[in-house]
Amino acid sequence: MTKFDDATQAIRVDDTTYDVCLDAAYTMGAAIHGGYLMAVMLRAVVDDSPHEHPVATSAQFLRVPKLGPATVRVDRIKSGRTTTVTRATMVQDDTPFLTAFVTTATLRPYDPGAEPDGLTWEAPARATMPPIEECRALPAPKPESNMALNAQMELLFDPPTIGWLTGEPTGRPESRAYFRMAEPQDPDPFVLALAVDALPPVVFSAGARGWAPTVELTWYLRALPAPGPLVLIADGDLIAEGWFDENVEVRDSAGRLVAQSRQLARLGRG
Amino acid sequence: MTKFDDATQAIRVDDTTYDVCLDAAYTMGAAIHGGYLMAVMLRAVVDDSPHEHPVATSAQFLRVPKLGPATVRVDRIKSGRTTTVTRATMVQDDTPFLTAFVTTATLRPYDPGAEPDGLTWEAPARATMPPIEECRALPAPKPESNMALNAQMELLFDPPTIGWLTGEPTGRPESRAYFRMAEPQDPDPFVLALAVDALPPVVFSAGARGWAPTVELTWYLRALPAPGPLVLIADGDLIAEGWFDENVEVRDSAGRLVAQSRQLARLGRG
Repeated sequence: MTKFDDATQAIRVDDTTYDVCLDAAYTMGAAIHGGYLMAVMLRAVVDDSPHEHPVATSAQFLRVPKLGPATVRVDRIKSGRTTTVTRATMVQDDTPFLTAFVTTATLRPYDPGAEPDGLTWEAPARATMPPIEECRALPAPKPESNMALNAQMELLFDPPTIGWLTGEPTGRPESRAYFRMAEPQDPDPFVLALAVDALPPVVFSAGARGWAPTVELTWYLRALPAPGPLVLIADGDLIAEGWFDENVEVRDSAGRLVAQSRQLARLGRG
Repeated sequence: MTKFDDATQAIRVDDTTYDVCLDAAYTMGAAIHGGYLMAVMLRAVVDDSPHEHPVATSAQFLRVPKLGPATVRVDRIKSGRTTTVTRATMVQDDTPFLTAFVTTATLRPYDPGAEPDGLTWEAPARATMPPIEECRALPAPKPESNMALNAQMELLFDPPTIGWLTGEPTGRPESRAYFRMAEPQDPDPFVLALAVDALPPVVFSAGARGWAPTVELTWYLRALPAPGPLVLIADGDLIAEGWFDENVEVRDSAGRLVAQSRQLARLGRG
């Protein structure tokens, strides 16, 4: 079991309740990473569902939780042959901090030789990445910043999209990077939950700074990923009235589109 | 009051309950239009919220409802200074057929002379529409098809994106049209709820046919629209394993991005 698998465990207590423990390794300053919280929640949902894979997750980020014990409550709203729809709520001290609808279904295992299953069509990637050797990590965070999250994953950025670090933002919302877990672990749906929210806010490239709280994030799991590093391609369409959207496309090492997310977030203050 | 306003009325019964009536004008064969159902639900949510505008709606389509009376149950999960998060569920005979999380907030009124409010950036439209005079309506549906919905709105399509009608699909998932209500009515957030789900499924242009049931649809209201017709620009990134995504960008008559939606749906059978 990897550290990530361990830190996202959900232990069934009864038909509608799972115990989880929010791990200090996934902190970002005073907050806990939203993708990590979704991964923990999805462990409970998938365990409870007759279907194996979270194909659609719509998450509402309500409050910043504390480290340590929390509860996931699951409520199966509908279960059919093809899909199950679950409402999941993460709670501390009887107060919800994350709630979501999750549709589970069963996807085909990754198989590079598989024949298409019915009508198949895929758009080209929204941006072309330079070779991984030309990509760059962010500088190591200062210990006092409490960015423990950064040690859990390796992000290697398309250099212009971190130009904001040195006062050269590209002038539009965008961010692109290769992603893998710091310890050896092939991507699975729970790693993808982390990955869809792993990039710095796209608005940094448009000149914004500060923590940008996610209000709503919906992501779709479209295929089980091939082993190897992922590519994260993020952009946004509109920054206005203090709000922005962030779209993330996740491609696996075989170049296949494996996840899509969009979130609505608030611009940071200062 | 327009017919649409009347058909989407929600009457408050008590703190958590609204009575609504699903109108035969919004049927599509044996189904009722999903965007219309969202508009009805949002009337109740907005009436109940201290905030005026549904900025994020994540809807789970569970079952096909019947025409006539239904109930909307609202549960305010969180209410703060900037946003309120509500769970809304539409029910008939104690069985939910649509459930959603809705974030409400307050946006600025449309004002062509307004100064930007903080950092502002907008992507160009994802496709350029031909002039409205060069666009074409779908042929009138046969009365026995029970497509009453088509009489409520006027859609004028970018011709190649309805080439599938005459055996000439473009070969990729796409659909684009000018949209307005059949009776005089300027767009508002409820009309936008209808509009984001108003196009034929994008997969028709990729060679698919048949009813394509929406599983999950999330849409963001990004700005209050200018009066006049809307432009709907839809595409998809992946068709695989019987699933497809559909992205819709809605621009107002001033060319501003006013709504964004993405849905995950199943390919029709036959």
